[in-house]
Amino acid sequence: MTDHRIIDLTITPIAFSDPPLLNSTGVHEPLALRTIVQLELANGVHAVGEGRAGAIGADAGAAVRDAVIGQDVFATTRIGAAVADAIRTVQPGAGRHAQLSAVAPIEVACLDAQGRTAGVPVSDLLGGAVRDSVPYSAYLFYKWAGHLDAEADAWGEALDPDGIVRQAERLVDEYGFGSLKLKAGVFEPDVEMDTIRALAQEFPGLPLRIDPNGAWTHETALRVIAEIGDLLEYVEDPVLGIEPMGRIHAETGAELATNMCLVEAEHVRPASEHRAVQILLTDHHYWGGLRVTKELGAICDALGMGVSMHSNSHLGISLAAMTHVAAAVPNLAYACDTHWPWNRVDDIVPRGQLEIHDGSLTVPTRPGLGVDLDADKVAELHERYVASGRTRRDDTGYMRRVDPAYDPTLPRF
Amino acid sequence: MTDHRIIDLTITPIAFSDPPLLNSTGVHEPLALRTIVQLELANGVHAVGEGRAGAIGADAGAAVRDAVIGQDVFATTRIGAAVADAIRTVQPGAGRHAQLSAVAPIEVACLDAQGRTAGVPVSDLLGGAVRDSVPYSAYLFYKWAGHLDAEADAWGEALDPDGIVRQAERLVDEYGFGSLKLKAGVFEPDVEMDTIRALAQEFPGLPLRIDPNGAWTHETALRVIAEIGDLLEYVEDPVLGIEPMGRIHAETGAELATNMCLVEAEHVRPASEHRAVQILLTDHHYWGGLRVTKELGAICDALGMGVSMHSNSHLGISLAAMTHVAAAVPNLAYACDTHWPWNRVDDIVPRGQLEIHDGSLTVPTRPGLGVDLDADKVAELHERYVASGRTRRDDTGYMRRVDPAYDPTLPRF
Repeated sequence: MTDHRIIDLTITPIAFSDPPLLNSTGVHEPLALRTIVQLELANGVHAVGEGRAGAIGADAGAAVRDAVIGQDVFATTRIGAAVADAIRTVQPGAGRHAQLSAVAPIEVACLDAQGRTAGVPVSDLLGGAVRDSVPYSAYLFYKWAGHLDAEADAWGEALDPDGIVRQAERLVDEYGFGSLKLKAGVFEPDVEMDTIRALAQEFPGLPLRIDPNGAWTHETALRVIAEIGDLLEYVEDPVLGIEPMGRIHAETGAELATNMCLVEAEHVRPASEHRAVQILLTDHHYWGGLRVTKELGAICDALGMGVSMHSNSHLGISLAAMTHVAAAVPNLAYACDTHWPWNRVDDIVPRGQLEIHDGSLTVPTRPGLGVDLDADKVAELHERYVASGRTRRDDTGYMRRVDPAYDPTLPRF
Repeated sequence: MTDHRIIDLTITPIAFSDPPLLNSTGVHEPLALRTIVQLELANGVHAVGEGRAGAIGADAGAAVRDAVIGQDVFATTRIGAAVADAIRTVQPGAGRHAQLSAVAPIEVACLDAQGRTAGVPVSDLLGGAVRDSVPYSAYLFYKWAGHLDAEADAWGEALDPDGIVRQAERLVDEYGFGSLKLKAGVFEPDVEMDTIRALAQEFPGLPLRIDPNGAWTHETALRVIAEIGDLLEYVEDPVLGIEPMGRIHAETGAELATNMCLVEAEHVRPASEHRAVQILLTDHHYWGGLRVTKELGAICDALGMGVSMHSNSHLGISLAAMTHVAAAVPNLAYACDTHWPWNRVDDIVPRGQLEIHDGSLTVPTRPGLGVDLDADKVAELHERYVASGRTRRDDTGYMRRVDPAYDPTLPRF
């Protein structure tokens, strides 16, 4: 038995290229931000985790290091509690969400280290993979042709149904995606419904989803479901809040998914009792890691909810982590979301180690997460982060550079 | 990375001494039955699990062996599904409960094998221990002086409040138990309430619980709670069924525990919605193993239920397994049940490896379950099983030898 105590922890904020993707609060800026966590164990094992932008801010780094260094890497529950305590100490106002966002990349790195120590893939630490590959969906976005003050990007413009259909064709050609998700809440619902109709015509048989991120009123949501509900596998966050979601389901019977109204443990019971959520889109980055995500699968199963996975802009360490846990959740029956095709040009995992074929990613079988970290690329993205001067995402501020009157208040339509 | 496929599985029914403990359906027979499962891996690791009587009956052994041999021992979810399939095939009428009772001892043996392979205790495979020792409660039973046609046993008679107080004194002296649970539903409620009053007087400050196993009517439960509710930490299964439990809680506000009305995943939502359960007593032996039990802890946390642990007559392999998972469940805030002091005289774990001091058992830190198996003792108990000719528990039948008119119908009082 080797000594698997943690002897070092480094926290590296990074910035990487992101296209100008539109959503209900504005538009993605040229750089997306993430947090890379690296562990070293006494036995010589090195391991990595990826977390949200600012998951462990500069003010919290020292306290989190103190909480983690010296701990047994298998003691993830204790480590998580110590990290949450550290965040609360440094940021007294930090809520559960902020605490768990700090815990998540560290837990992922601990599981990577456990797997490397024990010689098994992370999925084996979660009960084992029940599927050899994990399906992902094409994530379709209305987008500008290029960023402000920049040339058009390789993806081109998508500001109408035709543009989205072309984008979907490209994603399906390149990755073989077997389901399509449209980020909505951007244009008038009639435009977005026409987009869904165009996708349904172009890709008959492929499950379609629409996600306006709560941009619709109750009446708009009812109208959209009445007009195109039959074309949809599910509707994601048509309205904001547990009770409003429950009313939409009660009045329409539509299957509703969310990553907005059920994002903490305390939302589980009210969401269940209001029948507000038929498919929970989990996200280990704010639920506190992969073990908790596995447990969420069990919670969904017990409460009769379906389960799948939400995504923010991310790189390959997160894709590997999502794939391991998705492979281990028996009742995960919907293709997962991923932004990875939009961001992989800057991936920190060497090209070729992660590939989506036929819409699915093969679960890595090497020990730990089963992928390597390109240290030079991390250093480059960290320099880009420092040079950018940015520390947080601001889709609304970026949108206001072209539309100073842009109002992010929801519902909008 | 060693080859950790399973190359052999043996299933051994055993019988061991059990005192004549009274409950709401009769009395414990002279022999209690269990199922011992042993695995061998290609890497030479041997591992063990303990399950319920008849968990894998003689008719199912071959099919279960076929389902398990050749599998990667880390693939516990897949193995569990294969075992459940095998049980369904052999016993077409087998419900989820029977399937999961077969899965449980195999999952425990797999985790023992995983821990031995990776060099870590089982608790580390469940997120790590959050406490170094696990509290258990003294399990008090009305009992006969000895079995039929036998001399009085070392425990002596306990058929009234005084007898139970003497029993509790002995258990507290020997083990340092810090909480007391009375198995009730045996005598008129006034006798059982007097027993609780006597315990409260003799052991001031120690949490007390009472468990009539659903022997009371709604009115009796209300009366008991009104008269002695203030003396109790919780009331376990005062009545049968989710809705009746919910009504008792609604009318009294009493904290209710159960191992009877919430015993399968499909009971979770109705039990939550009826507020029928304030403390879930989990039992890995019929929920399908330790990972599921860890997940149940998360389900309870999300639904605002407390969590602790139920027990049937068992030996040390189960005690070790219960201790590992109890140590890994952060929100387990009540001392767990165990019958082990009643049965340890026949333990299959060498004496000294498991000891309850100050009411708690130190979590084993050796790899796997952290205990050894006394193969000679298993062989002896298997011979006793074969010689007994018995295959199932029959508390009612044994009681009818002294009271031919004994009617196990509940509620009784």
